[in-house]
Amino acid sequence: MKYCSQCGQPVSLSIPEGDDRHRHVCNVCNTIHYQNPKIIAGILPVFEDKILLCRRAIEPRHGLWTLPAGFMENEESTLEAARRETWEEAQARTCMEHLYVVLSVPRISQVYMIYLAQLEAPEFGPGEESLEVKLFAEEEVPWEEIAFHTVRRTLEFYFADRSKKNDFPMKDETLIL
Amino acid sequence: MKYCSQCGQPVSLSIPEGDDRHRHVCNVCNTIHYQNPKIIAGILPVFEDKILLCRRAIEPRHGLWTLPAGFMENEESTLEAARRETWEEAQARTCMEHLYVVLSVPRISQVYMIYLAQLEAPEFGPGEESLEVKLFAEEEVPWEEIAFHTVRRTLEFYFADRSKKNDFPMKDETLIL
Repeated sequence: MKYCSQCGQPVSLSIPEGDDRHRHVCNVCNTIHYQNPKIIAGILPVFEDKILLCRRAIEPRHGLWTLPAGFMENEESTLEAARRETWEEAQARTCMEHLYVVLSVPRISQVYMIYLAQLEAPEFGPGEESLEVKLFAEEEVPWEEIAFHTVRRTLEFYFADRSKKNDFPMKDETLIL
Repeated sequence: MKYCSQCGQPVSLSIPEGDDRHRHVCNVCNTIHYQNPKIIAGILPVFEDKILLCRRAIEPRHGLWTLPAGFMENEESTLEAARRETWEEAQARTCMEHLYVVLSVPRISQVYMIYLAQLEAPEFGPGEESLEVKLFAEEEVPWEEIAFHTVRRTLEFYFADRSKKNDFPMKDETLIL
């Protein structure tokens, strides 16, 4: 951030009175510009004993596999955002969603919120941001071609829970990258 | 947003190519300025059969009671943010935290993430943003003076869970205000 979004004049980094962090503050109108973490909402869609993954058609990690997920938009709920991304990237509809994995990634100021859900039917296809969308049995998962640590961790949680009790309690973890 | 934070020139609302929402786009350098929901992280601190509330020393809702909670900062985890706010507003330390309530509030583009936790000891006091910090038994809770719907809902969840099985499963809900 170089300029004030309110008045167009230059900003400086300084610690406002009563605060303890550096903020971008306008040199002219004194507006304080706060920056906050972003939420990535998504779904781990399950159909029978398989999970749905998308191969990315965009950077970063073009060509690698991911879960349908993306930046939550203003005026959405987390579940609405997760469903929207699943439709946009995998052309898939889910049901029985429950919030399964919350992963804070402080280094990049993101919080992943991934729902576990059932695919309504084995109907899906590549949205604009995907090259390919496919169901994978556990032994078929392309572990060497997973796009993000957060996705890998979510899949590890899922297969570990499934192998134990078929019970999927919510996880809340911090990922140090 | 009126001016581009990258180059200081005026922005306009328009739908970028390949997008389906209006964004603030710079008329000169074409930077797209995305805006996303913010996370409010906090804690419901419990000591024996009582809960800890803070009376607000700041607007909005000056003088009303709330849980220690506030905007998550960049480069934090959700739990770190919740603990920081609890220290700043209630001068209290907690342990055994688990993520208890996730409340999306689409109208104001916020997601509340509230942990349930034990107070380490009955030690607390008003931080700069609080007038007073106090433990309340259920029958003492000032229901008519609770600052926010999200806090009221969290307290309702807690007392309902406690009266049933003393089991506190995670809730994920959308609050329509």
